[in-house]
Amino acid sequence: MSLIRTTQVHAHVGARVTVHGWLHNWRQVGKLNFVIVRDGYGITQAVTEDAAAVAALHGLQHETVIELTGTVVAEAQAPGGVELRDLAIRVVTPVTDVLPFPINKALLKATLDVFLDHATVALRNPHRRNLLRLSAGVLAAFREFLTGEGFTEIQSPKLVASATESGANVFAVDYFGTQAYLAQSPQFYKQIMVGVFERVFEVGPVFRAEPHDTTRHVNEYVSLDVEFGFIENHFTVMALLTRLVRHILARLAERHALELELLGVTLPLAPATFPHIHFRDAQQWIFETHGDDCRNEPDLAPQHERWLGEWAREKFNSDFLFVVGYPMSKRPFYTHPDPADPKYSNSFDLLFRGTELVTGGQRLHRYPDYLAALARAKYPVEPFTTYLEAMKFGMPPHGGFAIGSERFVMQLCGLRNLREATLFPRDTHRLTP
Amino acid sequence: MSLIRTTQVHAHVGARVTVHGWLHNWRQVGKLNFVIVRDGYGITQAVTEDAAAVAALHGLQHETVIELTGTVVAEAQAPGGVELRDLAIRVVTPVTDVLPFPINKALLKATLDVFLDHATVALRNPHRRNLLRLSAGVLAAFREFLTGEGFTEIQSPKLVASATESGANVFAVDYFGTQAYLAQSPQFYKQIMVGVFERVFEVGPVFRAEPHDTTRHVNEYVSLDVEFGFIENHFTVMALLTRLVRHILARLAERHALELELLGVTLPLAPATFPHIHFRDAQQWIFETHGDDCRNEPDLAPQHERWLGEWAREKFNSDFLFVVGYPMSKRPFYTHPDPADPKYSNSFDLLFRGTELVTGGQRLHRYPDYLAALARAKYPVEPFTTYLEAMKFGMPPHGGFAIGSERFVMQLCGLRNLREATLFPRDTHRLTP
Repeated sequence: MSLIRTTQVHAHVGARVTVHGWLHNWRQVGKLNFVIVRDGYGITQAVTEDAAAVAALHGLQHETVIELTGTVVAEAQAPGGVELRDLAIRVVTPVTDVLPFPINKALLKATLDVFLDHATVALRNPHRRNLLRLSAGVLAAFREFLTGEGFTEIQSPKLVASATESGANVFAVDYFGTQAYLAQSPQFYKQIMVGVFERVFEVGPVFRAEPHDTTRHVNEYVSLDVEFGFIENHFTVMALLTRLVRHILARLAERHALELELLGVTLPLAPATFPHIHFRDAQQWIFETHGDDCRNEPDLAPQHERWLGEWAREKFNSDFLFVVGYPMSKRPFYTHPDPADPKYSNSFDLLFRGTELVTGGQRLHRYPDYLAALARAKYPVEPFTTYLEAMKFGMPPHGGFAIGSERFVMQLCGLRNLREATLFPRDTHRLTP
Repeated sequence: MSLIRTTQVHAHVGARVTVHGWLHNWRQVGKLNFVIVRDGYGITQAVTEDAAAVAALHGLQHETVIELTGTVVAEAQAPGGVELRDLAIRVVTPVTDVLPFPINKALLKATLDVFLDHATVALRNPHRRNLLRLSAGVLAAFREFLTGEGFTEIQSPKLVASATESGANVFAVDYFGTQAYLAQSPQFYKQIMVGVFERVFEVGPVFRAEPHDTTRHVNEYVSLDVEFGFIENHFTVMALLTRLVRHILARLAERHALELELLGVTLPLAPATFPHIHFRDAQQWIFETHGDDCRNEPDLAPQHERWLGEWAREKFNSDFLFVVGYPMSKRPFYTHPDPADPKYSNSFDLLFRGTELVTGGQRLHRYPDYLAALARAKYPVEPFTTYLEAMKFGMPPHGGFAIGSERFVMQLCGLRNLREATLFPRDTHRLTP
């Protein structure tokens, strides 16, 4: 008799095995008792007519922790094609309270707010935890690809002395009597570290004190950051990002086929080269095809991105589309301008199914260019002293990007709210659980 | 002519190659010019008698970014046994400022404070960046082992509504007009997630507002957190930790042999089973062998840990020693007591070369035990509501531990100050770079 995972039961037909986990369900149909046990990986059904075998469960509620021993029998109608019989059940941790709402349904009936209030138990729902397991798979594939490409992982500080990109939307921290801030991104650090390692990546939390609540924003999220040197321009960065995205999708298909199937996810169309369109041409196309004259706007609206996403899918068979050359006026001061037309930048957004997933581009790399850019933006030089020191002492042409990890899972799984892909989301109304 | 890394030059003897990187050094010995280029991976020497070949470097300083083409020649006296000749040098980014101190020496002459002030360039020193590359290797091996053992990665929020373990030493954040805190550890979240995945790990920043400056503490560091269910007691946790540490060391030996050699690191003695001693017996041993009567103290002093470390090395051929059974009075409220002697706990510290590296143990898992423990500690229940909800709905016996990532590298490499193993350290005096 061996202790196995629920996902291994199918390989032990005829044997006596033990599984442990949570009492996911217990139904009585006539004389038959159906006991469903859920462990960290899947579920297994156990069936008995023997009332004594389930006596230990009487008076106990769902989520009671149990150890269940039985004989594995092939049964076409059982989940996974097997079930346990001749049961012996031991209660490990009894539960006597009733869940705030049932978590053993495929689709939860709780509203998002109620779900989030009780996320500490609601995340045990198999559908919801599959989303989190996919997130873990995205992080693993991200690191695996970059390590293979000679990138080194860094972990930069989240407590910083000044706001990364501007003074707005930053959380202030009382730091031993002085003021510190929470990093809005590892942007400066990853650039600095290109001077050390040439190629770096980081996975870590970023903090945005944006006061608006939307379905696409939370105030703390996991950013997948990449930066590397000796590029030609932003197209070098886009080529790496394309291969990275394709690698992540291939690994998810390989290692998380079960989760993808249970979540009903169709993997996106991701051709070897993602199509791209210049910002200026995108605005012209929007005007000509949808009659929306946005040609003097410095940015694209969400509806514009959705139209472009549909166009890329129809015309290029691609769920991914690069928009390149955003106006310099809307990009941060360290952005490298387009040498041929300095009103526009060597930057890009990557749209995934019509929503912005990644922002990136080429950065300035010459020290005098930084001084000029700060002067143009009317920023003081002092808060940037240490960042500028790296630039003063030799930086190659470089660039990079940042992917919102939760945003990736949201778009991949077609979720309506970013909070569904976030472990314990933080927004203007929510700091718990 | 192909673009290669400096670490690949040795494999191209006779060929014409291009490397790029930073001007690490340029010496003139008689008519000979020795140019050392450093890329993100190593260094390569280039030699020429032709003054015209190095003309582009005149007036420029160390760290100028260059592209250097040459023919690979075997030369026993050159670093790595090869050098480039017949040079063509192109300047990519000129540097005209002089570094605050030379960074091309094996040992830097700067004091730690000066080093840290200029870390953005000083980390380019090959010795220092090797430490950071080892850190990346530790993280990769940590994740690899745990993924193989069925653990799922989580990323818990760093903005929390209340202090994790007590109200002290926590950074306060202004969160949209209310008060939030920076998480001192992912402790509660990783326990909660055992209810979802059974086995979880997390790599992320933790924040400790400890107002004292020591060589062993900083105020933000990278914590390697593990938690898993269905354990027997803390010995189950220690067994997993032992295998994890041995896996990390084996992977470092495999993948980072060059860094370990350049850093002069001798890998520690790590037997298949790490020895352990009970806290009470450790105090008795300290009293008997060193005459220090600490038998009524609730904790061990750093000197005690050093003595114990020496003893473990001599008696058990181990650089690692578990001290188990710390008094409940010094452990957090969620610690599981020793059933045989509830004054002591089912917890442990792992000493690495006489310094605490890991703290861990078994946690309480029954809801009524939590209520009793909070009452005993005179903590209000309300701040723990969501944590307690996970406990109310069925938790198996579980436990885990946290490793300080920088502490591991510090002890492994015999560094005198934790700041040497920290990318950009944060302490009471330092928020930059």
